[in-house]
Amino acid sequence: MTLDSLSRDQLDAFLAEQQQAYADLQQAGLKLDITRGKPSADQLDLSEGLLTTPVEDHVSDGVDVRNYGGGTGLAELRAIFAELLGVPVDQLVAGNNASLSMMHDSIVFAMLHGTPGGSPWKDGPVKFLCPSPGYDRHFAICEHLGIEMIPVAMLEDGPDMAAVREHVADPAVKGIWIVPTYANPTGAVVSEQVAAELASLDTAAGDFRIFWDNAYAVHDLTDQHVKSADIVGLCSAAGHPDRPLMFASTSKITLAGSGVSFLAGSPDNVAWYLSHTAVRTIGPDKVNQLRHARFLGSPQGVLDLMARHREILAPKFEAVLRILSERLGPHDVATWTTPKGGYFVSLDVVDGTASRVVRLAKEAGISLTPAGASFPYGKDPRDRNIRIAPSFPPMAELTQAMEGLATCVLLAAAEKAVSA
Amino acid sequence: MTLDSLSRDQLDAFLAEQQQAYADLQQAGLKLDITRGKPSADQLDLSEGLLTTPVEDHVSDGVDVRNYGGGTGLAELRAIFAELLGVPVDQLVAGNNASLSMMHDSIVFAMLHGTPGGSPWKDGPVKFLCPSPGYDRHFAICEHLGIEMIPVAMLEDGPDMAAVREHVADPAVKGIWIVPTYANPTGAVVSEQVAAELASLDTAAGDFRIFWDNAYAVHDLTDQHVKSADIVGLCSAAGHPDRPLMFASTSKITLAGSGVSFLAGSPDNVAWYLSHTAVRTIGPDKVNQLRHARFLGSPQGVLDLMARHREILAPKFEAVLRILSERLGPHDVATWTTPKGGYFVSLDVVDGTASRVVRLAKEAGISLTPAGASFPYGKDPRDRNIRIAPSFPPMAELTQAMEGLATCVLLAAAEKAVSA
Repeated sequence: MTLDSLSRDQLDAFLAEQQQAYADLQQAGLKLDITRGKPSADQLDLSEGLLTTPVEDHVSDGVDVRNYGGGTGLAELRAIFAELLGVPVDQLVAGNNASLSMMHDSIVFAMLHGTPGGSPWKDGPVKFLCPSPGYDRHFAICEHLGIEMIPVAMLEDGPDMAAVREHVADPAVKGIWIVPTYANPTGAVVSEQVAAELASLDTAAGDFRIFWDNAYAVHDLTDQHVKSADIVGLCSAAGHPDRPLMFASTSKITLAGSGVSFLAGSPDNVAWYLSHTAVRTIGPDKVNQLRHARFLGSPQGVLDLMARHREILAPKFEAVLRILSERLGPHDVATWTTPKGGYFVSLDVVDGTASRVVRLAKEAGISLTPAGASFPYGKDPRDRNIRIAPSFPPMAELTQAMEGLATCVLLAAAEKAVSA
Repeated sequence: MTLDSLSRDQLDAFLAEQQQAYADLQQAGLKLDITRGKPSADQLDLSEGLLTTPVEDHVSDGVDVRNYGGGTGLAELRAIFAELLGVPVDQLVAGNNASLSMMHDSIVFAMLHGTPGGSPWKDGPVKFLCPSPGYDRHFAICEHLGIEMIPVAMLEDGPDMAAVREHVADPAVKGIWIVPTYANPTGAVVSEQVAAELASLDTAAGDFRIFWDNAYAVHDLTDQHVKSADIVGLCSAAGHPDRPLMFASTSKITLAGSGVSFLAGSPDNVAWYLSHTAVRTIGPDKVNQLRHARFLGSPQGVLDLMARHREILAPKFEAVLRILSERLGPHDVATWTTPKGGYFVSLDVVDGTASRVVRLAKEAGISLTPAGASFPYGKDPRDRNIRIAPSFPPMAELTQAMEGLATCVLLAAAEKAVSA
């Protein structure tokens, strides 16, 4: 019973049915929110130890963590994450609570001062390749800094490399955003092969940078761990050691607002980042880093914690996928991703109806990420993509919100079919 | 027995005496450091509660501090510091662990985007007035960002306003650095009158900014609290509400590397700062802010803690001043400040000998802040200023270092007198 196969009368009846369902939804007076990839309180409770365990012994590797200094971050914590991220510990910097800040600042430093050996980006036009759908906060940094964004398709194994190859012939193209593992929002994983192509790519800009935001490196939703491609090693082997800047954080491992961020790259890139950062701070919060090192203990400690996150998250993703399948499957009005990790499900509804769906949902008390948010400038060319963030609401609210969203998707699809 | 009054023979004898004293000093094989204004371990111990007291109740004003969000910072903590800093709480932002970052970022935002209503500073030449001697990290930000620094004299009641008035007729002069209370390094306090003049100053640049770094607002060394001038109120009353940006932090109240920073200003300035900051972070570390609010408790709690810092710091300053007075006083080879608060003693030795003194001290195992560090571009035009930071070393080391420093000052003065 796909919409295409319905007669005009059947379509009118289907529309009326959806209108009634939507009226009922509005009656329910919901107030639900599935906009952002925030951990739930249950998940934050897993890191209770960060709030309650004293750190009386405040010396680590001979450093009194309470005082100024130590721009590279605490060695004890960096050792744990160097192993998880597959980078040498002396090429890994630990910072404050937001890897987004490290990305922002890296671009600002490149704009104002240039990268090692390069001239300041502000002296000419700067363009970034933006695999889309992608992470809205990456795009916000570009837009804010006046960097022209060029969308390229995000495929199942990474960005559309044919498009990437074409665009990097332009010397103004200085960078590309990549969420390599469990991408926001599609859940795609960049394959070894695509990573190797990115590493060896012939770019017109000598200071081309891969902003490799490995936010979900250990955030599996299944019992099969997906290992991220070793972009730092691949680029080094390909003769472009300074090409990648890797970012990661514990925001979705420990506490979202009070985690530790990481930056990794070539020795030159790390020295470059630290030289500019030294002007803005005398060092990161090493007490928080020590708390993390003690609480997490080891790489295995991180993986054990992630397994507990999975116990909370996997059922929510299953519920989302089940409702999408049950409610939308029969009508052929949408497609969606089935992520093996990360924080999102990416839903594509009937072309031209995503904004309508989001508006309908809002008027029924269900907050969704704005349509188009996952595209540069907030412009989804097909107006079809909606990002679903299952993590934050309790299960009962999540299923209510998803049922309501399904109703809105069907109503918008029916409206469009009738008016066609 | 000032050096001026000595005959040639007496001078030669005096030089020989100092050379012997310096040889003895070198023999002692010291390894001492009075370079930076770092709190001592004793001082950090005063905030042990931040490391050991659990924050199980992690909700403040209905906000789960563990999660993302809250760019303005925790209301509970801002209320405490709004009172201490004399600003309305809704004009006060609480950030991460370094107010230096807030200063740096404010200038970067102005460079790239302009201030409210102004054009980006990067579009033209930018100059800053730098009361000198002053704080080397302020000057490092300017130098790093290509901002031309214009030294003006730092007097006992603030910057030399005649020089300031003259320079602000240049529209490229966009700002001035001020440490209003217990200035780094002289300990000077900006008077109400100078503050009012700064507030009402007629500047060619419409977007002129006072970077009011109130790092030592509550850092008294005597039992008389010196209240900082209300620069936000004064500028508002003078019709220049957006002129000041006030900064402060708990770095020298609680833990130097893990404190909380603050920015205050007009509603427009605060909105401007937050709008740019929102692109680089989803919010500051609110868990650390909550720890601080619970640990400090109230404005009086902060003052009580500062009284305990004073118990540790005041004897160190007294020792420094006593040694300077005993060793250098009789010879008229130096002048120094007698600060009522803050972290430094500013020592002026014989013109042209500061670099020599610092080198002599280094070769005797005593690390001093590089000569000239307190001046723009590290250039002290009279090569006479040395910043002394008494806080970090234990008393025994501090007095040893000061005795050694006095020996170096006398030797350099004698060398110069002999060669004159």
